[in-house]
Amino acid sequence: MCPAPVANGNDRGYIIPIGGGEDRIKEMQIHRRFVELSGGSAASIVVIPTASMLHETGQDYRRIFSGLGAGKVDFLPINRRKDCDIPEFSEMLDNATGIFMTGGNQLRLSAILGGTLVAQKIRRRNAEGIPVAGTSAGASIMSEHMVAGGAGNESPAEGTVSLAPGIGLTNSVIIDQHFTQRNRLGRLLTASSYNPFLIGLGIDEDTAAFIGPDNVLEVVGSGTVTVVDASQMTHSSIWDAKPGEALSLLGLRLDVLGEGCRYDLDARVGYPPQDHSAIGEPPIVATKKPA
Amino acid sequence: MCPAPVANGNDRGYIIPIGGGEDRIKEMQIHRRFVELSGGSAASIVVIPTASMLHETGQDYRRIFSGLGAGKVDFLPINRRKDCDIPEFSEMLDNATGIFMTGGNQLRLSAILGGTLVAQKIRRRNAEGIPVAGTSAGASIMSEHMVAGGAGNESPAEGTVSLAPGIGLTNSVIIDQHFTQRNRLGRLLTASSYNPFLIGLGIDEDTAAFIGPDNVLEVVGSGTVTVVDASQMTHSSIWDAKPGEALSLLGLRLDVLGEGCRYDLDARVGYPPQDHSAIGEPPIVATKKPA
Repeated sequence: MCPAPVANGNDRGYIIPIGGGEDRIKEMQIHRRFVELSGGSAASIVVIPTASMLHETGQDYRRIFSGLGAGKVDFLPINRRKDCDIPEFSEMLDNATGIFMTGGNQLRLSAILGGTLVAQKIRRRNAEGIPVAGTSAGASIMSEHMVAGGAGNESPAEGTVSLAPGIGLTNSVIIDQHFTQRNRLGRLLTASSYNPFLIGLGIDEDTAAFIGPDNVLEVVGSGTVTVVDASQMTHSSIWDAKPGEALSLLGLRLDVLGEGCRYDLDARVGYPPQDHSAIGEPPIVATKKPA
Repeated sequence: MCPAPVANGNDRGYIIPIGGGEDRIKEMQIHRRFVELSGGSAASIVVIPTASMLHETGQDYRRIFSGLGAGKVDFLPINRRKDCDIPEFSEMLDNATGIFMTGGNQLRLSAILGGTLVAQKIRRRNAEGIPVAGTSAGASIMSEHMVAGGAGNESPAEGTVSLAPGIGLTNSVIIDQHFTQRNRLGRLLTASSYNPFLIGLGIDEDTAAFIGPDNVLEVVGSGTVTVVDASQMTHSSIWDAKPGEALSLLGLRLDVLGEGCRYDLDARVGYPPQDHSAIGEPPIVATKKPA
């Protein structure tokens, strides 16, 4: 799906893919920022634990976000497609000031939520300005084209990555998570090579990309976000490579973003933490595209 | 060490780092090409198995290269520094038309060969035009600055890679091997970020970079050679990152080279297999810098 249209004069909310394995005990800076963006003590956060098969996942996140000062935290126990029609859930999403999708299996998430009122509400609420965060599977599903699976530890090759339609909060990027930890460069390069329109985001564990309304992302966490930009690619062998044959991809650009770095997804330029001059103030609380 | 000077009107020999785990049973195209470059039936190949602790390594390679038609194959059983003074070994290197360094441990190799007559001879013979190949540890040691060790599966960070002086056949590149298989992007990025003068070569298993006398490399094998060029880097956090802190590296260039692709290490440009027009004929048998 495509992102829902943003009304004139409005800004969409933050889109916050997290690479999985984020700190839930010590500083919890990623969750803390999400709670702040959701309104802090005035927040009403809705957790969607559907990707997870664990019974306690929703409860766990309720405890975490409440502990960080969120005013109200609910979770939607959606385990079947028809759960998505429950009117109470719809209402909770209508009143949410932040939405969080947990980890688990992104194909479970897309197969249960895809094409339902809940998926539509998530897109609409984000277009209306509320932040949507997701970790691991919950991060993958955010983009229009989602990495559904594929092998780590492989050179880029057709067949090393499988794509599926995501929930479509953004169509600028394709997201992979547990990036360094599971050696997923090959599959992200493959996905990026299919259509260089998409920027590949490889997000490490305990690391998040806070993608602002202005399409500038900022990195929070202990790892890196690896940005693959294939728009200047001078050669790709993707269309004539044999199955499993290692791909040749020439002229890629790579930015490795540690904490505080930012990347303008429209201009395709990375910025170091200190350098706010080039694109205005840090976007974490900005609601307007910087001058 | 720096490469030995090449006499006026001469060309240095090929430098052939191999990523380890190369096919030794089926097509053996990497070894086959090395034997051809060494002179085929007229070749006199000297194997240096010092990196390996296995007694049979030298014999194994003698069998492989002989099986591929090499006229003469010897190996030097160098296990201590003083073995490097054996006059017979010196003579064999003087008469060699190709030198091959096996896998094992590159610090064993550098600690035993470093500063000896054998290391000097390898550099000189290469400068005089004979090809020098090395696999795994034997690949790492080829450059002036050698990746001695470091963690795989890590985001780039100071301390994820340790460098040591190599044998110094080239100072254009820094080489890492078993690249995709052991998830070594982080440590190659770290090494490349130390001094962007060096081009990072991440060589997959069963893959080789045939670096010609003209400093154009060609890829042979089933994996890829990942080229990291940090010369256009716009930001690095290497000098103020805390130990273990993930690095930010902005504005890197990345080429993923599959079989037949070439890369001009002087111009820092990659070429697809078909495109020979830009830099002349394929360099595999060329001895002159293409026009």
